[in-house]
Amino acid sequence: MQILKSKKKIAVVALSGGLDSCVTAAIANEDYELALLHANYNQLTEKKELESFNRIAEYYNVKHKLVVDLSHIAAIGGSSLTDKSIPVKKADLHSKEIPNSYVPFRNANILSVCTGWAEVLNASAIFIGAVFEDSSGYPDCRPEFFKAFQQVIKLGTKPDFNADIITPVINLSKAEIVKKGIELNAPLKFTWSCYTNEDEACGVCDSCALRLRGFQIAGVEDPIAYKIKPNYSGY
Amino acid sequence: MQILKSKKKIAVVALSGGLDSCVTAAIANEDYELALLHANYNQLTEKKELESFNRIAEYYNVKHKLVVDLSHIAAIGGSSLTDKSIPVKKADLHSKEIPNSYVPFRNANILSVCTGWAEVLNASAIFIGAVFEDSSGYPDCRPEFFKAFQQVIKLGTKPDFNADIITPVINLSKAEIVKKGIELNAPLKFTWSCYTNEDEACGVCDSCALRLRGFQIAGVEDPIAYKIKPNYSGY
Repeated sequence: MQILKSKKKIAVVALSGGLDSCVTAAIANEDYELALLHANYNQLTEKKELESFNRIAEYYNVKHKLVVDLSHIAAIGGSSLTDKSIPVKKADLHSKEIPNSYVPFRNANILSVCTGWAEVLNASAIFIGAVFEDSSGYPDCRPEFFKAFQQVIKLGTKPDFNADIITPVINLSKAEIVKKGIELNAPLKFTWSCYTNEDEACGVCDSCALRLRGFQIAGVEDPIAYKIKPNYSGY
Repeated sequence: MQILKSKKKIAVVALSGGLDSCVTAAIANEDYELALLHANYNQLTEKKELESFNRIAEYYNVKHKLVVDLSHIAAIGGSSLTDKSIPVKKADLHSKEIPNSYVPFRNANILSVCTGWAEVLNASAIFIGAVFEDSSGYPDCRPEFFKAFQQVIKLGTKPDFNADIITPVINLSKAEIVKKGIELNAPLKFTWSCYTNEDEACGVCDSCALRLRGFQIAGVEDPIAYKIKPNYSGY
């Protein structure tokens, strides 16, 4: 008797190329066929991020791959990640303020692109690696934001289409994300998180600090190169 | 005594260059300083639409003007407006089906850009000329869709920011939109609605048919040139 292998459902995964989105792709890969989407918005480290995206896509041998140009996000500005006249601040892991690296409404822009693509691919899910608990406090990383966007998808697409927004790492700490990535053999060595550098990670921006603290608390060596590697585990 | 003129609040207006968005800009112009946004998504008639946008922006003498490239929408495809292999159907004003000119999740993509810009400009409102009643039945033109998106703006932006989504023509008929435009001196002669042509409007696509019927019912001559001008007023 021939056993027919059921065709896997498709998930669109927003993959910046950083740690969180790579582990998110690894989680999606357990149950779905991956459709990987990368947004270029003229961020400072876009070249390196795109390289990470392509390596991760190659690692998972994906058929559906889409790189989109959202450079209007940089034209609109208002963030240190897209406007060179605003310096990227050194990390302050105790601050309650929204840091200047916040990119206005970035996740809604990215989710809108994901949804349009999901509708055309007839995908069942949209994965996004937003982190809320152990993060910089961006408003578009809140669970309530994604819940509200789910409603927009339900109402703004064809009646016979729906895709669940899945945020599998939203409430994990960075250390838990690192451990999850290792458990699933995610290619963490290809990921890039630094906001400012493309050769060696700076080690001192918000994103480096959160990442390094995660690896340090998890007791795992971060496989990428750093210019300096402060110990953040006590912060 | 010197009377200080209060500084007008800013409204971001999504302006395709068509009839509905032009009248929407005219309405916004009554109470706000206009910030006009045009999205190029490699639609068939983009060149003409951009020309319309620029002429309308000039007419209103706007300071804030932004043209964004959303050509990923065409790369994603799934619509006769962006994929030349899908023919634009002739109008069927009685059909209840979503026509193939539907561009997946276009309005969410456009609203996301508007919101990011509104946040940077600290605008108070976002105007979009969606029409629901007298339209082609696109899901992202439903009032519920905009209500849901309002919630996304509230939750996905900085706590001290909010902008109201205003859809002033959503429940108007095309004839009422024409009359409103004339009442407000909107530059209707600069608008472009045809889905397929850039020299003379075709007169037979969905968008031409809805527009012509509006002018015909309003009893007003449409100021733009048509290849053919069927009488739709009895439909």
